[in-house]
Amino acid sequence: MLSRTDILTVEDGEPVAVDNPDGAGRFLFICEHASRLMPRNAGNLGLGPEALASHIAWDPGALAVASQLSSEFDSVLISQRFSRLIYDCNRPPESPSAMPEASEIYEIPGNKNLAPAERYARTAALYIPFHDRIAQEVAARKARRQDTIVVTVHSFTPVYLGKQRDVEVGILHDEDSRFADALLDVGKGGQYRLERNDPYGPDDGVTHSLRLHALPNGLMNVMIEVRNDLLADEAGQGQVSAYLTSLFCDGLSRLGAAS
Amino acid sequence: MLSRTDILTVEDGEPVAVDNPDGAGRFLFICEHASRLMPRNAGNLGLGPEALASHIAWDPGALAVASQLSSEFDSVLISQRFSRLIYDCNRPPESPSAMPEASEIYEIPGNKNLAPAERYARTAALYIPFHDRIAQEVAARKARRQDTIVVTVHSFTPVYLGKQRDVEVGILHDEDSRFADALLDVGKGGQYRLERNDPYGPDDGVTHSLRLHALPNGLMNVMIEVRNDLLADEAGQGQVSAYLTSLFCDGLSRLGAAS
Repeated sequence: MLSRTDILTVEDGEPVAVDNPDGAGRFLFICEHASRLMPRNAGNLGLGPEALASHIAWDPGALAVASQLSSEFDSVLISQRFSRLIYDCNRPPESPSAMPEASEIYEIPGNKNLAPAERYARTAALYIPFHDRIAQEVAARKARRQDTIVVTVHSFTPVYLGKQRDVEVGILHDEDSRFADALLDVGKGGQYRLERNDPYGPDDGVTHSLRLHALPNGLMNVMIEVRNDLLADEAGQGQVSAYLTSLFCDGLSRLGAAS
Repeated sequence: MLSRTDILTVEDGEPVAVDNPDGAGRFLFICEHASRLMPRNAGNLGLGPEALASHIAWDPGALAVASQLSSEFDSVLISQRFSRLIYDCNRPPESPSAMPEASEIYEIPGNKNLAPAERYARTAALYIPFHDRIAQEVAARKARRQDTIVVTVHSFTPVYLGKQRDVEVGILHDEDSRFADALLDVGKGGQYRLERNDPYGPDDGVTHSLRLHALPNGLMNVMIEVRNDLLADEAGQGQVSAYLTSLFCDGLSRLGAAS
Protein backbone atom coordinates (compact mmCIF):
# COMPACT_ATOMS: atom_id res chain seq x y z
CA MET A 1 0.00 0.00 0.00
CA LEU A 2 1.48 3.27 -1.04
CA SER A 3 -0.87 5.84 -2.50
CA ARG A 4 -4.58 6.53 -2.70
CA THR A 5 -4.88 4.40 -5.83
CA ASP A 6 -3.65 1.37 -3.91
CA ILE A 7 -6.60 1.78 -1.54
CA LEU A 8 -9.27 2.47 -4.15
CA THR A 9 -8.59 1.04 -7.56
CA VAL A 10 -10.48 1.94 -10.72
CA GLU A 11 -12.65 -1.17 -10.21
CA ASP A 12 -13.76 0.09 -6.79
CA GLY A 13 -15.16 3.29 -8.28
CA GLU A 14 -15.49 6.64 -6.58
CA PRO A 15 -15.46 6.96 -2.79
CA VAL A 16 -18.35 9.43 -2.72
CA ALA A 17 -21.95 8.97 -3.83
CA VAL A 18 -24.26 11.93 -4.41
CA ASP A 19 -28.02 11.38 -4.50
CA ASN A 20 -30.39 14.03 -5.79
CA PRO A 21 -27.50 16.37 -6.74
CA ASP A 22 -29.85 19.04 -8.11
CA GLY A 23 -32.18 18.89 -5.14
CA ALA A 24 -33.47 22.37 -4.43
CA GLY A 25 -34.47 21.70 -0.82
CA ARG A 26 -33.10 23.26 2.29
CA PHE A 27 -31.30 20.26 3.75
CA LEU A 28 -27.89 18.85 3.01
CA PHE A 29 -27.88 15.22 4.16
CA ILE A 30 -24.62 13.46 4.95
CA CYS A 31 -24.14 9.75 5.60
CA GLU A 32 -20.55 8.93 6.61
CA HIS A 33 -21.24 5.32 7.64
CA ALA A 34 -23.57 4.40 4.81
CA SER A 35 -21.86 1.24 3.64
CA ARG A 36 -20.02 -1.84 4.76
CA LEU A 37 -18.39 -2.27 1.35
CA MET A 38 -14.67 -3.01 1.57
CA PRO A 39 -12.27 -1.84 -1.13
CA ARG A 40 -11.07 -4.88 -3.13
CA ASN A 41 -7.46 -4.51 -1.99
CA ALA A 42 -8.37 -4.17 1.68
CA GLY A 43 -9.16 -7.81 2.34
CA ASN A 44 -11.11 -8.35 5.54
CA LEU A 45 -8.69 -6.65 7.99
CA GLY A 46 -8.53 -9.96 9.84
CA LEU A 47 -12.22 -9.80 10.76
CA GLY A 48 -14.80 -12.55 10.40
CA PRO A 49 -18.09 -12.21 8.49
CA GLU A 50 -20.04 -11.34 11.65
CA ALA A 51 -17.87 -8.33 12.46
CA LEU A 52 -17.80 -7.27 8.80
CA ALA A 53 -21.61 -7.19 8.74
CA SER A 54 -21.98 -5.55 12.15
CA HIS A 55 -22.36 -1.94 13.29
CA ILE A 56 -18.58 -1.60 13.59
CA ALA A 57 -18.39 -1.70 9.77
CA TRP A 58 -21.32 0.64 9.04
CA ASP A 59 -24.53 2.13 10.40
CA PRO A 60 -27.17 -0.38 9.27
CA GLY A 61 -30.26 1.33 7.87
CA ALA A 62 -28.80 4.84 8.00
CA LEU A 63 -28.47 5.20 4.24
CA ALA A 64 -32.03 3.97 3.67
CA VAL A 65 -33.37 6.64 6.03
CA ALA A 66 -31.12 9.35 4.60
CA SER A 67 -32.25 8.47 1.05
CA GLN A 68 -35.90 8.73 1.97
CA LEU A 69 -35.34 12.07 3.70
CA SER A 70 -33.41 13.26 0.66
CA SER A 71 -36.41 12.41 -1.55
CA GLU A 72 -39.02 13.84 0.80
CA PHE A 73 -37.20 17.17 1.11
CA ASP A 74 -35.81 17.23 -2.45
CA SER A 75 -32.38 17.67 -0.91
CA VAL A 76 -28.86 16.56 -1.77
CA LEU A 77 -27.45 13.50 0.02
CA ILE A 78 -23.70 12.87 0.12
CA SER A 79 -22.59 9.45 1.33
CA GLN A 80 -19.37 7.50 1.68
CA ARG A 81 -19.36 4.33 -0.43
CA PHE A 82 -16.89 2.36 1.72
CA SER A 83 -16.79 0.91 5.21
CA ARG A 84 -15.72 3.04 8.13
CA LEU A 85 -13.37 0.21 9.10
CA ILE A 86 -10.97 1.51 6.43
CA TYR A 87 -11.44 5.19 7.30
CA ASP A 88 -14.17 6.60 9.53
CA CYS A 89 -15.13 9.76 7.65
CA ASN A 90 -16.70 11.24 10.77
CA ARG A 91 -13.24 11.47 12.35
CA PRO A 92 -10.31 13.76 11.49
CA PRO A 93 -6.98 12.24 10.40
CA GLU A 94 -5.43 13.27 13.73
CA SER A 95 -7.87 11.03 15.64
CA PRO A 96 -6.87 7.46 16.55
CA SER A 97 -10.46 6.43 15.81
CA ALA A 98 -10.17 7.47 12.15
CA MET A 99 -8.61 4.02 11.58
CA PRO A 100 -9.48 2.28 14.83
CA GLU A 101 -7.46 -0.61 16.22
CA ALA A 102 -10.54 -1.85 18.05
CA SER A 103 -14.26 -1.15 18.00
CA GLU A 104 -16.69 -2.24 20.70
CA ILE A 105 -15.98 -5.95 21.32
CA TYR A 106 -13.81 -6.45 18.23
CA GLU A 107 -10.08 -6.07 17.75
CA ILE A 108 -9.32 -4.97 14.18
CA PRO A 109 -6.05 -6.72 13.28
CA GLY A 110 -5.74 -4.99 9.90
CA ASN A 111 -5.74 -1.58 11.61
CA LYS A 112 -3.01 -2.36 14.16
CA ASN A 113 0.24 -0.40 13.93
CA LEU A 114 -0.59 1.05 10.55
CA ALA A 115 2.44 2.33 8.67
CA PRO A 116 2.46 6.05 7.84
CA ALA A 117 2.11 5.23 4.13
CA GLU A 118 -1.04 3.24 4.81
CA ARG A 119 -2.57 5.97 6.99
CA TYR A 120 -1.72 8.53 4.36
CA ALA A 121 -3.19 6.50 1.53
CA ARG A 122 -6.48 5.88 3.35
CA THR A 123 -6.81 9.55 4.28
CA ALA A 124 -6.15 10.61 0.70
CA ALA A 125 -8.42 7.96 -0.81
CA LEU A 126 -11.47 8.24 1.45
CA TYR A 127 -11.49 11.20 3.82
CA ILE A 128 -10.27 14.02 1.60
CA PRO A 129 -12.55 13.43 -1.42
CA PHE A 130 -15.57 12.91 0.83
CA HIS A 131 -15.19 16.15 2.73
CA ASP A 132 -14.05 18.02 -0.36
CA ARG A 133 -17.32 17.09 -2.04
CA ILE A 134 -19.32 18.32 0.94
CA ALA A 135 -17.29 21.54 1.19
CA GLN A 136 -17.88 22.12 -2.53
CA GLU A 137 -21.62 21.67 -2.04
CA VAL A 138 -21.70 24.04 0.93
CA ALA A 139 -19.71 26.65 -1.02
CA ALA A 140 -22.00 26.37 -4.06
CA ARG A 141 -25.09 26.83 -1.90
CA LYS A 142 -23.51 29.79 -0.15
CA ALA A 143 -22.69 31.36 -3.53
CA ARG A 144 -26.36 30.91 -4.54
CA ARG A 145 -27.44 32.39 -1.17
CA GLN A 146 -29.37 29.20 -0.51
CA ASP A 147 -30.25 28.47 3.12
CA THR A 148 -28.79 25.19 4.32
CA ILE A 149 -29.39 22.90 7.27
CA VAL A 150 -26.74 20.20 7.54
CA VAL A 151 -28.06 16.84 8.76
CA THR A 152 -25.86 13.81 9.34
CA VAL A 153 -27.72 10.50 9.56
CA HIS A 154 -26.44 7.62 11.71
CA SER A 155 -27.65 4.49 13.44
CA PHE A 156 -26.46 2.88 16.66
CA THR A 157 -26.51 -0.62 18.08
CA PRO A 158 -29.20 -1.38 20.72
CA VAL A 159 -26.70 -3.24 22.90
CA TYR A 160 -23.24 -1.77 23.39
CA LEU A 161 -20.65 -3.60 25.46
CA GLY A 162 -23.47 -5.69 26.89
CA LYS A 163 -25.56 -2.71 27.95
CA GLN A 164 -29.08 -2.11 26.62
CA ARG A 165 -29.79 1.38 25.29
CA ASP A 166 -33.25 2.83 25.83
CA VAL A 167 -33.02 5.92 23.67
CA GLU A 168 -34.56 5.35 20.22
CA VAL A 169 -33.63 8.49 18.34
CA GLY A 170 -30.70 10.62 19.46
CA ILE A 171 -30.74 14.31 18.54
CA LEU A 172 -27.09 15.30 18.70
CA HIS A 173 -25.50 18.70 18.39
CA ASP A 174 -22.31 20.57 19.01
CA GLU A 175 -22.13 24.27 19.91
CA ASP A 176 -24.96 25.30 17.61
CA SER A 177 -28.11 23.64 18.97
CA ARG A 178 -30.75 25.71 17.16
CA PHE A 179 -32.18 22.96 14.99
CA ALA A 180 -31.66 20.25 17.61
CA ASP A 181 -33.54 22.37 20.19
CA ALA A 182 -36.44 22.82 17.77
CA LEU A 183 -36.61 19.06 17.05
CA LEU A 184 -36.49 18.13 20.73
CA ASP A 185 -39.15 20.69 21.47
CA VAL A 186 -41.64 19.50 18.85
CA GLY A 187 -40.78 15.82 19.35
CA LYS A 188 -41.68 15.56 23.03
CA GLY A 189 -44.02 12.68 23.86
CA GLY A 190 -44.12 11.45 20.27
CA GLN A 191 -43.85 8.06 18.63
CA TYR A 192 -40.20 7.44 19.51
CA ARG A 193 -38.15 8.12 22.59
CA LEU A 194 -35.92 11.10 21.73
CA GLU A 195 -32.92 12.20 23.76
CA ARG A 196 -30.42 15.03 23.48
CA ASN A 197 -26.79 14.03 22.84
CA ASP A 198 -27.53 10.39 23.59
CA PRO A 199 -26.11 7.74 23.13
CA TYR A 200 -23.24 9.97 22.02
CA GLY A 201 -22.41 13.63 22.25
CA PRO A 202 -19.82 16.12 21.05
CA ASP A 203 -17.30 14.96 23.66
CA ASP A 204 -17.20 11.58 21.92
CA GLY A 205 -15.89 13.25 18.78
CA VAL A 206 -18.98 12.36 16.75
CA THR A 207 -19.73 15.90 15.59
CA HIS A 208 -16.68 16.11 13.34
CA SER A 209 -18.63 16.59 10.10
CA LEU A 210 -20.77 19.26 11.73
CA ARG A 211 -17.66 21.00 13.02
CA LEU A 212 -16.04 20.89 9.59
CA HIS A 213 -18.94 22.07 7.48
CA ALA A 214 -21.77 23.58 9.50
CA LEU A 215 -20.28 25.49 12.45
CA PRO A 216 -17.67 27.55 10.57
CA ASN A 217 -20.33 28.56 8.05
CA GLY A 218 -23.00 29.41 10.60
CA LEU A 219 -25.31 26.77 9.15
CA MET A 220 -27.97 25.16 11.32
CA ASN A 221 -27.31 21.48 11.79
CA VAL A 222 -28.10 18.30 13.64
CA MET A 223 -26.84 14.75 13.86
CA ILE A 224 -29.53 12.06 13.93
CA GLU A 225 -28.81 8.70 15.60
CA VAL A 226 -31.48 6.01 15.15
CA ARG A 227 -31.34 2.76 17.14
CA ASN A 228 -30.71 0.19 14.44
CA ASP A 229 -33.24 -2.44 15.63
CA LEU A 230 -35.86 0.04 14.44
CA LEU A 231 -34.31 -0.09 10.96
CA ALA A 232 -34.04 -3.88 10.59
CA ASP A 233 -36.39 -4.02 7.57
CA GLU A 234 -37.93 -1.77 4.96
CA ALA A 235 -41.08 -1.33 7.01
CA GLY A 236 -39.10 -0.04 9.98
CA GLN A 237 -36.96 2.18 7.79
CA GLY A 238 -40.11 3.60 6.20
CA GLN A 239 -41.69 4.29 9.58
CA VAL A 240 -38.64 6.03 10.97
CA SER A 241 -38.22 8.05 7.76
CA ALA A 242 -41.85 9.14 7.86
CA TYR A 243 -41.48 10.07 11.51
CA LEU A 244 -38.31 12.11 10.88
CA THR A 245 -39.92 13.82 7.87
CA SER A 246 -42.77 14.97 10.04
CA LEU A 247 -40.42 15.89 12.90
CA PHE A 248 -38.25 17.99 10.57
CA CYS A 249 -41.32 19.76 9.14
CA ASP A 250 -42.53 20.60 12.61
CA GLY A 251 -39.02 21.69 13.59
CA LEU A 252 -38.83 24.03 10.61
CA SER A 253 -42.21 25.54 11.56
CA ARG A 254 -41.08 26.02 15.12
CA LEU A 255 -37.94 27.81 13.91
CA GLY A 256 -40.04 29.96 11.62
CA ALA A 257 -42.29 30.90 14.53
CA ALA A 258 -39.30 31.69 16.73
CA SER A 259 -37.41 33.82 14.21
CA MET B 1 -11.70 29.05 5.83
CA LEU B 2 -13.62 26.04 4.69
CA SER B 3 -12.11 24.01 1.89
CA ARG B 4 -8.78 23.54 0.18
CA THR B 5 -9.56 26.33 -2.27
CA ASP B 6 -9.84 28.78 0.61
CA ILE B 7 -6.24 27.97 1.56
CA LEU B 8 -4.77 28.02 -1.94
CA THR B 9 -6.63 30.17 -4.42
CA VAL B 10 -6.10 30.10 -8.19
CA GLU B 11 -3.75 33.10 -7.82
CA ASP B 12 -1.51 31.15 -5.45
CA GLY B 13 -0.91 28.45 -8.04
CA GLU B 14 -0.12 24.82 -7.42
CA PRO B 15 1.25 23.62 -4.07
CA VAL B 16 3.84 21.33 -5.64
CA ALA B 17 6.80 22.20 -7.89
CA VAL B 18 8.57 19.55 -9.94
CA ASP B 19 12.06 20.29 -11.30
CA ASN B 20 13.64 18.11 -13.94
CA PRO B 21 10.51 15.91 -14.27
CA ASP B 22 12.07 13.77 -16.99
CA GLY B 23 15.36 13.34 -15.14
CA ALA B 24 16.67 9.84 -15.79
CA GLY B 25 18.97 9.75 -12.73
CA ARG B 26 18.78 7.42 -9.81
CA PHE B 27 17.78 9.92 -7.14
CA LEU B 28 14.40 11.29 -6.21
CA PHE B 29 14.99 14.55 -4.34
CA ILE B 30 12.34 15.94 -2.01
CA CYS B 31 12.30 19.36 -0.39
CA GLU B 32 9.40 19.79 2.04
CA HIS B 33 10.57 23.09 3.54
CA ALA B 34 11.72 24.75 0.35
CA SER B 35 9.84 28.00 0.65
CA ARG B 36 8.68 30.67 3.04
CA LEU B 37 5.93 31.79 0.69
CA MET B 38 2.59 32.29 2.45
CA PRO B 39 -0.69 31.66 0.63
CA ARG B 40 -2.41 35.00 -0.01
CA ASN B 41 -5.34 34.25 2.27
CA ALA B 42 -3.16 33.10 5.15
CA GLY B 43 -2.01 36.52 6.30
CA ASN B 44 1.02 36.39 8.59
CA LEU B 45 -0.39 34.06 11.28
CA GLY B 46 0.30 36.85 13.78
CA LEU B 47 4.06 36.65 13.20
CA GLY B 48 6.46 39.53 12.54
CA PRO B 49 8.77 39.79 9.52
CA GLU B 50 11.72 38.30 11.43
CA ALA B 51 9.87 35.09 12.27
CA LEU B 52 8.38 34.90 8.77
CA ALA B 53 11.89 34.99 7.27
CA SER B 54 13.43 32.64 9.83
CA HIS B 55 14.04 28.90 9.87
CA ILE B 56 10.64 28.32 11.47
CA ALA B 57 9.03 29.29 8.13
CA TRP B 58 11.38 27.32 5.83
CA ASP B 59 14.80 25.71 5.51
CA PRO B 60 16.94 28.52 4.10
CA GLY B 61 19.20 27.32 1.31
CA ALA B 62 17.75 23.81 1.16
CA LEU B 63 15.99 24.31 -2.19
CA ALA B 64 19.15 25.80 -3.76
CA VAL B 65 21.15 22.74 -2.74
CA ALA B 66 18.41 20.33 -3.80
CA SER B 67 18.17 22.06 -7.21
CA GLN B 68 21.88 21.74 -7.81
CA LEU B 69 21.86 18.08 -6.81
CA SER B 70 18.87 17.52 -9.10
CA SER B 71 20.87 19.01 -12.00
CA GLU B 72 24.10 17.19 -11.20
CA PHE B 73 22.40 13.82 -11.00
CA ASP B 74 19.79 14.50 -13.71
CA SER B 75 17.16 13.56 -11.14
CA VAL B 76 13.62 14.66 -10.34
CA LEU B 77 13.12 17.18 -7.50
CA ILE B 78 9.71 17.58 -5.87
CA SER B 79 9.30 20.58 -3.58
CA GLN B 80 6.51 22.26 -1.62
CA ARG B 81 5.87 25.82 -2.78
CA PHE B 82 4.47 27.13 0.50
CA SER B 83 5.74 27.72 4.03
CA ARG B 84 5.75 24.94 6.57
CA LEU B 85 4.05 27.36 8.95
CA ILE B 86 0.78 26.60 7.15
CA TYR B 87 1.39 22.85 6.91
CA ASP B 88 4.67 21.08 7.58
CA CYS B 89 4.72 18.48 4.81
CA ASN B 90 7.27 16.40 6.70
CA ARG B 91 4.65 15.67 9.35
CA PRO B 92 1.50 13.50 9.14
CA PRO B 93 -1.92 15.07 9.76
CA GLU B 94 -2.15 13.25 13.11
CA SER B 95 0.93 15.09 14.42
CA PRO B 96 0.50 18.31 16.42
CA SER B 97 3.59 19.66 14.66
CA ALA B 98 1.91 19.46 11.25
CA MET B 99 0.40 22.88 12.09
CA PRO B 100 2.51 23.86 15.10
CA GLU B 101 1.27 26.26 17.77
CA ALA B 102 4.87 27.18 18.56
CA SER B 103 8.27 26.67 16.95
CA GLU B 104 11.59 27.24 18.72
CA ILE B 105 11.31 30.66 20.40
CA TYR B 106 8.18 31.75 18.55
CA GLU B 107 4.53 31.33 19.41
CA ILE B 108 2.44 31.05 16.23
CA PRO B 109 -0.85 32.81 17.05
CA GLY B 110 -2.47 31.89 13.72
CA ASN B 111 -1.99 28.19 14.47
CA LYS B 112 -3.54 28.22 17.95
CA ASN B 113 -6.71 26.23 18.50
CA LEU B 114 -7.28 25.64 14.84
CA ALA B 115 -10.84 24.70 13.97
CA PRO B 116 -11.35 21.27 12.38
CA ALA B 117 -12.36 22.94 9.11
CA GLU B 118 -9.09 24.85 8.99
CA ARG B 119 -6.99 21.76 9.77
CA TYR B 120 -8.88 19.84 7.13
CA ALA B 121 -8.47 22.54 4.49
CA ARG B 122 -4.73 22.86 5.05
CA THR B 123 -4.25 19.10 4.92
CA ALA B 124 -6.23 18.86 1.71
CA ALA B 125 -4.57 21.87 0.11
CA LEU B 126 -0.92 21.23 0.95
CA TYR B 127 -0.14 17.80 2.39
CA ILE B 128 -2.24 15.53 0.19
CA PRO B 129 -1.21 16.89 -3.24
CA PHE B 130 2.45 17.00 -2.20
CA HIS B 131 2.65 13.40 -1.11
CA ASP B 132 0.35 12.25 -3.90
CA ARG B 133 2.81 13.69 -6.40
CA ILE B 134 5.71 11.90 -4.75
CA ALA B 135 3.77 8.62 -4.51
CA GLN B 136 2.90 8.94 -8.20
CA GLU B 137 6.58 9.42 -9.06
CA VAL B 138 7.65 6.45 -6.96
CA ALA B 139 4.97 4.26 -8.57
CA ALA B 140 5.97 5.33 -12.09
CA ARG B 141 9.63 4.54 -11.40
CA LYS B 142 8.70 1.19 -9.91
CA ALA B 143 6.60 0.39 -13.01
CA ARG B 144 9.65 1.23 -15.18
CA ARG B 145 11.84 -0.92 -12.89
CA GLN B 146 14.02 2.12 -12.30
CA ASP B 147 16.24 2.04 -9.20
CA THR B 148 15.46 4.89 -6.82
CA ILE B 149 17.23 6.46 -3.86
CA VAL B 150 14.98 8.90 -2.02
CA VAL B 151 16.80 11.95 -0.63
CA THR B 152 15.10 14.66 1.39
CA VAL B 153 17.07 17.91 1.67
CA HIS B 154 16.82 20.15 4.72
CA SER B 155 18.74 22.86 6.57
CA PHE B 156 18.90 23.63 10.28
CA THR B 157 19.64 26.70 12.33
CA PRO B 158 23.15 26.95 13.86
CA VAL B 159 21.73 28.16 17.18
CA TYR B 160 18.65 26.45 18.59
CA LEU B 161 17.09 27.63 21.83
CA GLY B 162 20.35 29.47 22.57
CA LYS B 163 22.55 26.43 22.03
CA GLN B 164 25.27 26.30 19.37
CA ARG B 165 25.27 23.26 17.11
CA ASP B 166 28.62 21.89 15.97
CA VAL B 167 27.46 19.37 13.41
CA GLU B 168 27.61 20.80 9.86
CA VAL B 169 25.93 18.12 7.80
CA GLY B 170 23.53 15.67 9.39
CA ILE B 171 23.06 12.29 7.72
CA LEU B 172 19.68 11.12 9.01
CA HIS B 173 17.96 7.82 8.53
CA ASP B 174 15.13 5.71 9.85
CA GLU B 175 15.15 1.89 9.87
CA ASP B 176 16.88 1.56 6.53
CA SER B 177 20.38 3.01 6.96
CA ARG B 178 22.03 1.52 3.87
CA PHE B 179 22.69 4.75 2.00
CA ALA B 180 23.31 6.76 5.18
CA ASP B 181 25.92 4.21 6.31
CA ALA B 182 27.68 4.47 2.95
CA LEU B 183 27.74 8.29 3.09
CA LEU B 184 29.04 8.34 6.67
CA ASP B 185 31.66 5.82 5.74
CA VAL B 186 33.05 7.67 2.73
CA GLY B 187 32.59 11.11 4.34
CA LYS B 188 34.82 10.54 7.38
CA GLY B 189 37.45 13.27 7.91
CA GLY B 190 36.22 15.28 4.93
CA GLN B 191 35.51 18.95 4.33
CA TYR B 192 32.48 19.18 6.63
CA ARG B 193 31.70 17.70 10.00
CA LEU B 194 29.20 14.90 9.39
CA GLU B 195 27.12 13.25 12.08
CA ARG B 196 24.58 10.44 12.11
CA ASN B 197 21.02 11.40 13.12
CA ASP B 198 22.15 14.79 14.37
CA PRO B 199 20.77 17.40 15.07
CA TYR B 200 17.60 15.35 14.64
CA GLY B 201 16.76 11.71 14.31
CA PRO B 202 13.80 9.45 13.64
CA ASP B 203 12.49 9.87 17.18
CA ASP B 204 11.90 13.56 16.44
CA GLY B 205 9.43 12.57 13.72
CA VAL B 206 11.57 14.05 10.94
CA THR B 207 11.68 10.91 8.81
CA HIS B 208 7.99 11.08 7.88
CA SER B 209 8.57 11.45 4.13
CA LEU B 210 11.06 8.57 4.19
CA ARG B 211 8.58 6.46 6.11
CA LEU B 212 5.80 7.28 3.65
CA HIS B 213 7.64 6.73 0.41
CA ALA B 214 10.96 4.93 0.82
CA LEU B 215 10.58 2.33 3.58
CA PRO B 216 7.36 0.64 2.40
CA ASN B 217 8.86 0.35 -1.09
CA GLY B 218 12.23 -0.94 0.01
CA LEU B 219 13.97 2.07 -1.56
CA MET B 220 17.31 3.26 -0.23
CA ASN B 221 17.04 6.70 1.27
CA VAL B 222 18.59 9.41 3.38
CA MET B 223 17.68 12.77 4.87
CA ILE B 224 20.32 15.47 4.55
CA GLU B 225 20.42 18.32 7.09
CA VAL B 226 22.84 21.16 6.31
CA ARG B 227 23.60 23.86 8.91
CA ASN B 228 22.12 26.94 7.30
CA ASP B 229 25.01 29.34 8.02
CA LEU B 230 26.90 27.33 5.40
CA LEU B 231 24.16 28.18 2.89
CA ALA B 232 23.96 31.93 3.52
CA ASP B 233 25.00 32.88 -0.02
CA GLU B 234 25.36 31.36 -3.47
CA ALA B 235 29.02 30.61 -2.91
CA GLY B 236 28.24 28.58 0.22
CA GLN B 237 25.32 26.83 -1.47
CA GLY B 238 27.60 25.96 -4.40
CA GLN B 239 30.28 24.58 -2.11
CA VAL B 240 27.90 22.43 -0.12
CA SER B 241 26.22 21.19 -3.31
CA ALA B 242 29.57 20.27 -4.85
CA TYR B 243 30.55 18.51 -1.62
CA LEU B 244 27.29 16.53 -1.49
CA THR B 245 27.59 15.64 -5.18
CA SER B 246 30.98 14.14 -4.56
CA LEU B 247 29.83 12.48 -1.31
CA PHE B 248 26.86 10.88 -3.07
CA CYS B 249 29.10 9.63 -5.94
CA ASP B 250 31.49 8.09 -3.45
CA GLY B 251 28.56 6.64 -1.51
CA LEU B 252 27.15 5.04 -4.67
CA SER B 253 30.57 3.52 -5.42
CA ARG B 254 30.83 2.17 -1.91
CA LEU B 255 27.39 0.58 -2.23
CA GLY B 256 28.41 -0.91 -5.57
CA ALA B 257 31.54 -2.35 -3.99
CA ALA B 258 29.59 -3.79 -1.10
CA SER B 259 26.86 -5.41 -3.14
